Amino acid sequence: MGEPESDSRERVKPTLPGGFRDYLPAEMIVRNRMIATIRGVFERFGFDPLETPGMERRQVLTGNSSNFRMMIFDTRLGSPREEQASERTALRFDLTVPLARVVAANLGELRLPFRRYQIGNVWRGEKPQAGRFREFMQFDADIVGTATPVADAEIVALMVATMQALGIDRFQVRFNNRKILNGLAGYAGFDAALTSDVLRIIDKLPKIGRDAVLRELTKARAADDGGELEEGADLQESGYGLGLPTAVADRIGAFLDLRGTTDELLGGASELFSGVPVAQDGLRELRQITDALRAMRVPEACWGLDLSVARGLAYYTGPVFETYLLDLPEIGSVFSGGRYDDLVNRFMDGSIPCTGASVGVDRLFAALTKLGRITPAPTMVQALVTVMDQGHVNDYLTLASELRDAGVRTVMWVGEETNFKEQLAYGAAKEIPVLVLLGDNERKSSTVSVKDMRARKQVTVPRTEFVATVRGMLAGT
Amino acid sequence: MGEPESDSRERVKPTLPGGFRDYLPAEMIVRNRMIATIRGVFERFGFDPLETPGMERRQVLTGNSSNFRMMIFDTRLGSPREEQASERTALRFDLTVPLARVVAANLGELRLPFRRYQIGNVWRGEKPQAGRFREFMQFDADIVGTATPVADAEIVALMVATMQALGIDRFQVRFNNRKILNGLAGYAGFDAALTSDVLRIIDKLPKIGRDAVLRELTKARAADDGGELEEGADLQESGYGLGLPTAVADRIGAFLDLRGTTDELLGGASELFSGVPVAQDGLRELRQITDALRAMRVPEACWGLDLSVARGLAYYTGPVFETYLLDLPEIGSVFSGGRYDDLVNRFMDGSIPCTGASVGVDRLFAALTKLGRITPAPTMVQALVTVMDQGHVNDYLTLASELRDAGVRTVMWVGEETNFKEQLAYGAAKEIPVLVLLGDNERKSSTVSVKDMRARKQVTVPRTEFVATVRGMLAGT
Repeated sequence: MGEPESDSRERVKPTLPGGFRDYLPAEMIVRNRMIATIRGVFERFGFDPLETPGMERRQVLTGNSSNFRMMIFDTRLGSPREEQASERTALRFDLTVPLARVVAANLGELRLPFRRYQIGNVWRGEKPQAGRFREFMQFDADIVGTATPVADAEIVALMVATMQALGIDRFQVRFNNRKILNGLAGYAGFDAALTSDVLRIIDKLPKIGRDAVLRELTKARAADDGGELEEGADLQESGYGLGLPTAVADRIGAFLDLRGTTDELLGGASELFSGVPVAQDGLRELRQITDALRAMRVPEACWGLDLSVARGLAYYTGPVFETYLLDLPEIGSVFSGGRYDDLVNRFMDGSIPCTGASVGVDRLFAALTKLGRITPAPTMVQALVTVMDQGHVNDYLTLASELRDAGVRTVMWVGEETNFKEQLAYGAAKEIPVLVLLGDNERKSSTVSVKDMRARKQVTVPRTEFVATVRGMLAGT
Repeated sequence: MGEPESDSRERVKPTLPGGFRDYLPAEMIVRNRMIATIRGVFERFGFDPLETPGMERRQVLTGNSSNFRMMIFDTRLGSPREEQASERTALRFDLTVPLARVVAANLGELRLPFRRYQIGNVWRGEKPQAGRFREFMQFDADIVGTATPVADAEIVALMVATMQALGIDRFQVRFNNRKILNGLAGYAGFDAALTSDVLRIIDKLPKIGRDAVLRELTKARAADDGGELEEGADLQESGYGLGLPTAVADRIGAFLDLRGTTDELLGGASELFSGVPVAQDGLRELRQITDALRAMRVPEACWGLDLSVARGLAYYTGPVFETYLLDLPEIGSVFSGGRYDDLVNRFMDGSIPCTGASVGVDRLFAALTKLGRITPAPTMVQALVTVMDQGHVNDYLTLASELRDAGVRTVMWVGEETNFKEQLAYGAAKEIPVLVLLGDNERKSSTVSVKDMRARKQVTVPRTEFVATVRGMLAGT
């Protein structure tokens, strides 16, 4: 059984590594409610649950790409030793790459289209800072095996329905199409190979503004360039630019200046990109999405085309989606996704088109807390059976048991302190709504006293009726 | 946006590291139901949720113990470099040590007694083998801050209630007290320092039997001894023994031979250990637990004293609990725990008594599957809106939307294949109970056809009534 922990041993500091956090009950209770709400909506939209391990082979995560720049956590058993590259393992950084692996590995078994949701933690080596963690929960929904924009529209509808179900009214799902952005080179007249660099700069629009974006596009190039944009990375205006001609930047500016309703933007972009087939493809898909959203009666105020939405991750190939809280735009998107038709191709010949989106549960939770939309709940406990006489402890256990059998979430006082005041203070601090009391008087008269802590009243009822009394108080009658 | 995944790139094998597994929907749906059931019981018993990260400082996990033998996964960002010992991180191997850390770190904030539950994955470097994984889910409930055996009894009652709620009837929660086992040295006459070695051998009783246990106790010692027993490790009879005198082994045998009801065992052990105060303490606690279980009316058939139960983990100090499936005892305990009064002491001066137990969710799931008590559910989807005419796709979207608004878990066909037979086969393979059809005839007459796949009947109803019809079919009316 090993050596017992002895008092002579040096104490370990009870701290977490930087970038990690606990969720104590007051927050966890509300967070669980949030997760249950999201799960309910995802299931209504016909998504089935999937779970994959936190750890994957490193190659699966990076795709063997020399371009893979995200900081991920390697995992190792015991002392480091030389392992074959194919045996190296690491913690997943999203739930999308594991989904692609599952699809490739189970293609015979899965009927397409395959709609799955997955809840799970992911890990990224981001620099720890306020509100940014190295472990965070994602809640993803994806449709695998269909290229129709109707599937993309279903994802947008799901995003809207989820936000509504969470009781958030001031939000907007904004979408765009990578195909329009891929048409930018042809439209504005720059080398298509620069597209990802241009998009990375455009992606900063909400943070740095139009003028700074154009400045970066035209400023001279630095020698050491490149680097993939990490999703959600907190970008500063960098010190170097792309060195594009002013005329090209101006055309990009004209694109960024497009304003209006979704239908007006679709019209305006269609004119600008009249000679660019890939962009026209993208616009046609967006029109289909728009039509589908209207058919599903998704409120118009909740969604809209935003030509500046690009999404950082490399794997998106078509429509992309983001969700902004109108009262807290600076925290960025809380629910994002897009179409990624080539990811499964990492594992097998042939493409399998996929589309989906991911809730950043922790970021959304932090945002709602900041907006005062989340009130911590100290406990889920509904009734506390106090112990007035340790000599009759089994009587109290029986009471607690009866309440639990009736579905009442109940604790019995098992604390060291038997003082009744202490028990009352415990119940009050935890905001437990009902206290159950059984003293000498009650015992003699076969009654139980029940205290409604919210209404601040106490009644004494026959022993046989106390469960009903507690339930009545909880129901507010 | 990085380079797109190109067809020229080498494919990555879509495989998991050894010892890891996916849960596809058919299993995940049933697993989620199991988890929801457990959560419901834990909440009824007054436990509140807590969440801690998957990663901890390595010192927190090992307690700086030179005796720590469990294989755990170290985690590192990027290339290995020399890190300070205090900065090293690893994946947690249970949820109990993190709880002790949380308690030590938040003592001012937490009101004791603190009852928390936690669901989460843990990781251990066990040798991958059938039914044993390197990532598995635990579901723990613990009461922190009280030494009363009544709290231990509440844990046992929780264990019984959980198994019952899961619909398992043939199980038994068996408990014992480390204090009795710690009294073995005084009773049988061996060096108390050998206690953990003796217990490790006794722990094999269910697997190797009484005679082999006594043989190991008396067989000559090997030179290289020691090593902590990992919880749940699959032990073989080892090649060496403890070299105890036969008289001592015989006294241990007499202890192992005690048989009878819980009350008879308590009496028998009390006689055997008459001169051993620590064991008498343990027996007194067990009597209190027994009384409390009866007060809570926990059925007698569901629990009992088992003097051979020891539990592997080093940190237990008092009562210990295990749960066996009577029809599958060989898989070991599926829900285990005990009292650990010194663990928080790793982090701070002074002890905080704790007791609790942990469901091995994956082991229990595997066991119930083996017993045929789990029927995979191919999908949670209740209705499939088929698409008979792609030209009217928006009509189908509206139907799907109305069903979802009414709480029906619905998918619309978004597959590439528009052939109706294919859609019918999809619905049948997934066992989706209701199909919704809208063809030319229905469109002309403002009706919708609804097909009950279980009852194999189809009705055509007015457009305005189809939601009610679907709900009626799902309700089985």
